[in-house]
Amino acid sequence: MAKGITSRATDYSKWYGDVIAQAELADYSPVKGCMVIRPNGYAIWEAMQRELDARIKATGHENAYFPIFIPESFLTKEKEHVEGFAPECAVVTHGGGKELEEKLYVRPTSETIMYAMFSQWIQSWRDLPLLINQWANVVRWEMRTRLFLRTLEFLWQEGHTAHETFEEAEAEARKMLGVYQEFAETVMAIPVIPGKKTDSEKFRGALHTYCIEAMMQDHRALQAGTSHHLGQNFSKPFDVKFQARDATLQHVWQTSWGVSTRLIGAVIMVHSDDHGLVLPPKLAPQQVVAVPIWQSEDDKAKVTAVVKKIEDGLAGRVRFKADLREQYKPGWKFFHWEARGVPLRLEIGPRDVAAGQVVMVRRDTGQKTTLTVESFLEKCESLLAEIQQGLFDKALAFRKKHTHVMDSWQDFTKLMEGEEGFVYAGWCGKVTCEEKLKNETKATIRCIPDDSHPEPGKCLVCNEPSRRRVIYARAY
Amino acid sequence: MAKGITSRATDYSKWYGDVIAQAELADYSPVKGCMVIRPNGYAIWEAMQRELDARIKATGHENAYFPIFIPESFLTKEKEHVEGFAPECAVVTHGGGKELEEKLYVRPTSETIMYAMFSQWIQSWRDLPLLINQWANVVRWEMRTRLFLRTLEFLWQEGHTAHETFEEAEAEARKMLGVYQEFAETVMAIPVIPGKKTDSEKFRGALHTYCIEAMMQDHRALQAGTSHHLGQNFSKPFDVKFQARDATLQHVWQTSWGVSTRLIGAVIMVHSDDHGLVLPPKLAPQQVVAVPIWQSEDDKAKVTAVVKKIEDGLAGRVRFKADLREQYKPGWKFFHWEARGVPLRLEIGPRDVAAGQVVMVRRDTGQKTTLTVESFLEKCESLLAEIQQGLFDKALAFRKKHTHVMDSWQDFTKLMEGEEGFVYAGWCGKVTCEEKLKNETKATIRCIPDDSHPEPGKCLVCNEPSRRRVIYARAY
Repeated sequence: MAKGITSRATDYSKWYGDVIAQAELADYSPVKGCMVIRPNGYAIWEAMQRELDARIKATGHENAYFPIFIPESFLTKEKEHVEGFAPECAVVTHGGGKELEEKLYVRPTSETIMYAMFSQWIQSWRDLPLLINQWANVVRWEMRTRLFLRTLEFLWQEGHTAHETFEEAEAEARKMLGVYQEFAETVMAIPVIPGKKTDSEKFRGALHTYCIEAMMQDHRALQAGTSHHLGQNFSKPFDVKFQARDATLQHVWQTSWGVSTRLIGAVIMVHSDDHGLVLPPKLAPQQVVAVPIWQSEDDKAKVTAVVKKIEDGLAGRVRFKADLREQYKPGWKFFHWEARGVPLRLEIGPRDVAAGQVVMVRRDTGQKTTLTVESFLEKCESLLAEIQQGLFDKALAFRKKHTHVMDSWQDFTKLMEGEEGFVYAGWCGKVTCEEKLKNETKATIRCIPDDSHPEPGKCLVCNEPSRRRVIYARAY
Repeated sequence: MAKGITSRATDYSKWYGDVIAQAELADYSPVKGCMVIRPNGYAIWEAMQRELDARIKATGHENAYFPIFIPESFLTKEKEHVEGFAPECAVVTHGGGKELEEKLYVRPTSETIMYAMFSQWIQSWRDLPLLINQWANVVRWEMRTRLFLRTLEFLWQEGHTAHETFEEAEAEARKMLGVYQEFAETVMAIPVIPGKKTDSEKFRGALHTYCIEAMMQDHRALQAGTSHHLGQNFSKPFDVKFQARDATLQHVWQTSWGVSTRLIGAVIMVHSDDHGLVLPPKLAPQQVVAVPIWQSEDDKAKVTAVVKKIEDGLAGRVRFKADLREQYKPGWKFFHWEARGVPLRLEIGPRDVAAGQVVMVRRDTGQKTTLTVESFLEKCESLLAEIQQGLFDKALAFRKKHTHVMDSWQDFTKLMEGEEGFVYAGWCGKVTCEEKLKNETKATIRCIPDDSHPEPGKCLVCNEPSRRRVIYARAY
């Protein structure tokens, strides 16, 4: 066990906090519930932004920026929406030294302020689809916060689109869920289950909500992204109308979809171990770190020459860092970079230089290999790809191991009291069964999954007929 | 004069608004004083961010993110700072449905919340320098707003650093001013004058403030970036201490520096003309746009084949867009892309295809050239570089033309009532002269410039001795 990191088995929640502290990813701030994202954590967010922004643009969306403040009268236009969000809002009552005539809400999400603009920009079917994305901070008042997973302020992207027909909006909502799934699986190395939320779990104001759900190492679920088909629920109160191809005046069909800095929490919880952070290479700010070892000045010159050769050899291909600091010892540096999750560590001492080799340590497996400098330079990218895939495979195997197909309420409650996990079981479709389950087991229906276990059966709670299995789990 | 754009000569202020509206860069929002940055405007900001972020990182800074809310007790710790900013703040008094025990200010700038964290992170000289940057939104309550130039909420980057000595902090403040100058001149193609603010114009809480000043086409000055040496003014109240190399406990020396979305306003005001937006190629979301012209389906096939060939030829080198929309006519597209500031427009019709050529129109000069496709592909990047340099040269010549060296109050007041401009003149150093000048002419001392006109003389206002000339101008 690493210094300063509680083991997962001892206290999972404390382990999570320790991993974040040791890797210097984030801190609680003096503002209750707000976090400070430190440079090591923010660099992960920047890598996520880079990868996701490219995908959002490749699917035809453009970035824009809307005001952080929402007039009270806007938020209240969509009934379900205001009921859901108003109690969670931070409210500005004074500005410029005066009390405001109308209160301003700090955006908890931007549907209302954006669609007020959409109604000005959209006149005709020729203006559709309108495909907008925003990278921004949002505020939702939270009492029980946890770094990255649940904070009063968080960073996210929110896509907002307008379409001519129900079918087009539906296709968009599904498409962006697919983008999220591909991003989660190939970039974050996190397997996710795409599905639909039940009505009681959907976005407040949506027709229906799609989501991707991931399993953490404590077997709990984490919602990693959502995509909403909003129907005409907002276009009607916000008067977003267009002249259709048949010359009639119609309301647009809309979607919204988002992922947030909570994904950093998911990456930590899925991949890290008792030695600290483990990062998938695609998200690692440094993919390879070299720790040189020397005693004499003569050795120093030889070792740093090899480090320089590796740096040059990787330039433009791999994110490399040489830790040349003299005030720290090699052993200290090994732990330092291990706790920060760098996928590959190189140890290079005078004997290695003499033998033309380096010692390479994989963060994911701890495996130590000695290989020639040339061989390392040649294999580096394929090794990183192997680690990326290995992390995904491991997480998928873990999820499979802790996923159960059940039909008995007794088995289910026992599981939820013990190791938890994902359970595929029947559901009759009634909200009363969802509520009972939540009250008695703290589990919820995570989603009605797309592609598996569609067999009819009985509701886990009431035994009435169920058309298909859904996924039950305790969640973050 | 282009449709929908007032000429500069008729009404400069209206021209500015028209250019923004026609290029769809931004809109006023339903929240008084807040703007919506539309995709065309946001793409310019993204280009600025990309270029500037690379420079900020290359000088050793790391990005991080701090809370948007600042507790009232923090803001009030530095006396000058709170006097300057508190009256401009938006104040959150309620959150989560309850009145807050302590009011929260929406950040107008982040010195106070950041340095509270710095005091936790910094222990020893080994932790220094600490070099942090943040990309964020900030809010300053403004009554008289203008798109990009002055809005209630704006986007910016704010660098915040901590150092062991006065000298190091001073060097950092100067270095970042240099980064801003290089960025302004090579990326935005805007010549700027680096200098120091007078005490009455400095950042509230700083020892002194450096700035870069640019001239707009109405001969007014616009402050395009500032870099502050904060001394120990914040480290003392926020208790940011370190154990020095000599084992004594000392307060750090700090800097902060920032540029904002106001720079988009500067780019518009410096380069655009009566036909609309003109963008320097390095900031243009599309650097080349091709407008195909056809009547028959046969022609269409031939023309689009050439467009495709150009697209392939420019891929990875130049940001290219083919406007293949069939619902708009070529003439409409010419104006459309002209108003959006695309540096190079290609017109390609059946006769051009037959002759193996394209018609190229430069946005900056309006110059029309016919050249072969091969020749265009070969020259495209050097043409864009030529346009970039040409815009800078033109702006520099313009500034020189409207910059005057003066010694007479009468000449000065006459100039300020008429065409305005930059005036190099003496200043005795007294704030009373600054105030008199401001009250009577609406001009201010823009900066004490670094590198020119250091000759002694007399104060423009009171005729007392002046050590050097400073720059007087009316400003945004």
